[in-house]
Amino acid sequence: MPQASLSQRLLQGDKFALARLISWAENGDARFAATLRELAPRAEACWRTGITGPPGAGKSTLVNQLAKELRTLQRSVGILAVDPSSPFSGGALLGDRIRMEERTTDPGVFIRSMASRGAHGGMSRAAVDACDAIEAAGYGEILLETVGVGQAEYDVVGAADTVLVVLCPGAGDGIQAMKAGILEVADVLVVNKSDLPGADRMVVDLEEAVHIRATGGARDPEGWSAPVVPCSAGTGEDIDEVLRQIEKHRAWLAGERLVRARREKRLQHVRRAVEEQLAQELWVNRGLGDRASALLESGTAPYDVVETLVSSILGAPKRDGVKSA
Amino acid sequence: MPQASLSQRLLQGDKFALARLISWAENGDARFAATLRELAPRAEACWRTGITGPPGAGKSTLVNQLAKELRTLQRSVGILAVDPSSPFSGGALLGDRIRMEERTTDPGVFIRSMASRGAHGGMSRAAVDACDAIEAAGYGEILLETVGVGQAEYDVVGAADTVLVVLCPGAGDGIQAMKAGILEVADVLVVNKSDLPGADRMVVDLEEAVHIRATGGARDPEGWSAPVVPCSAGTGEDIDEVLRQIEKHRAWLAGERLVRARREKRLQHVRRAVEEQLAQELWVNRGLGDRASALLESGTAPYDVVETLVSSILGAPKRDGVKSA
Repeated sequence: MPQASLSQRLLQGDKFALARLISWAENGDARFAATLRELAPRAEACWRTGITGPPGAGKSTLVNQLAKELRTLQRSVGILAVDPSSPFSGGALLGDRIRMEERTTDPGVFIRSMASRGAHGGMSRAAVDACDAIEAAGYGEILLETVGVGQAEYDVVGAADTVLVVLCPGAGDGIQAMKAGILEVADVLVVNKSDLPGADRMVVDLEEAVHIRATGGARDPEGWSAPVVPCSAGTGEDIDEVLRQIEKHRAWLAGERLVRARREKRLQHVRRAVEEQLAQELWVNRGLGDRASALLESGTAPYDVVETLVSSILGAPKRDGVKSA
Repeated sequence: MPQASLSQRLLQGDKFALARLISWAENGDARFAATLRELAPRAEACWRTGITGPPGAGKSTLVNQLAKELRTLQRSVGILAVDPSSPFSGGALLGDRIRMEERTTDPGVFIRSMASRGAHGGMSRAAVDACDAIEAAGYGEILLETVGVGQAEYDVVGAADTVLVVLCPGAGDGIQAMKAGILEVADVLVVNKSDLPGADRMVVDLEEAVHIRATGGARDPEGWSAPVVPCSAGTGEDIDEVLRQIEKHRAWLAGERLVRARREKRLQHVRRAVEEQLAQELWVNRGLGDRASALLESGTAPYDVVETLVSSILGAPKRDGVKSA
């Protein structure tokens, strides 16, 4: 099938064509760039909302509800569920997929899950490419969900315009450990399962933490302070309020702030893609690993092997102050 | 102070000298390699045990007890506590440090904690360098503890010879989510707080999971099957059994298996160090980021920017099949 046909099918709303384009992005296939070049995606046409939080917080249910709410507003929704932490195909992710399945018969909803291929740092690059594909296919909203709570998950949702962190009462230690990180990445804090005991307390605690953080530094009076929104994704209660806060953040970000934020994120994406391609070229195509092995076998000390390899790639003599390991 | 003096002080057991050497490793300072070159570390002199598990599982307490036990056997112990997930200095890590403080007056114990500098993937490289430094200083045992449960933590402890995964009853969802990953990385599974309700059940569940995994593939009759060891780090009960299992794994690994495993890990370390140095040189020293920004500003599509930059680094024409983003 010629490539033009895939672009055509994509613009006609063919979900299988979009799924294939995303697979190309995942596999680092050159046809991805070629197709996007044909499609010339509309700038800022699509709003990207990232959703993260600990396992069991109800992220998938919330995503499902948000999609439902967005559909009633006639907006088309692309849902991307990413599991960047585990190099193994995850049961949790499969479960999420099944729960989200009920939305897939709607032509205005596209759902895709991506599991890590074990490539270090590769997930954030692949996730952004997948979002670009969904945007190019004409969807107006992207819900980018990650399974898990670590740095890898933050890296993925960090590419979104608005980041939701979903918590729920009683998840305990894990939450304590991630609290500092949460406040850094969250544009909106969602306390899900608001009918559970401890929910009110959690809302108060989080609001306090946000306040302390906001007043801790030199406070920007025009800065964004993450609202804390209780809701129940299970019953659908207050989902409209979550959506309202996303819209509010979107309005706040509009204009110069958005241009700057997206420029910064785009640059990071380019950097990741460059590093991934370099790694592929050096370690796979050019067999740098074999050279390293041979040097180590011959008794060369690890830091000398590093120096030799770096010099051979950059074609430059070693300088003072350059990193050494 | 001339560098020779640092090596001298290190060999005389000066902990401040060792701390400085590790700081050099953390900061990517070229003096690290220069000093290690002088010291010519003894191969296989030091056993590296990695300890990972969810927050609250009692990793630090266990590390403390293991160190105590190793000291009664007259072995010197280097403890390295690493927090690779969070780019923020962590309260949890500070707490761990304080708990471990009681061991620091012993001249045969060295304690150091490392928090992420936010460098992607940099922690595993820095942690291995720090272990090399501790080994070069003559310590016989290294306990490499990570705070957290994600891929970044596995990357760090994966450099150890023996990996302990510490769990405890009642940690809930987090454990479910990490179970698959745990079995892949664990050489010994420790169920801490064995006096808590649910501990026996957890031991049985984990043993079953290990068994299913062992028989799932083509089973190696000489393969290692991770034992599940209940203990109570708080009271010190059965810590000797944990140590016995580490020794058992060490004995199993001895010889050709150990040579192969260490070769593989060393190669990975070299690769990480090369990639880190390349990133430093390209993005910091050579200002590749500015070039990328300028290209994006001029309206060049992201995937074309990637292609341009990669070609300029490798000095090679783009080929078919090379990854594209």
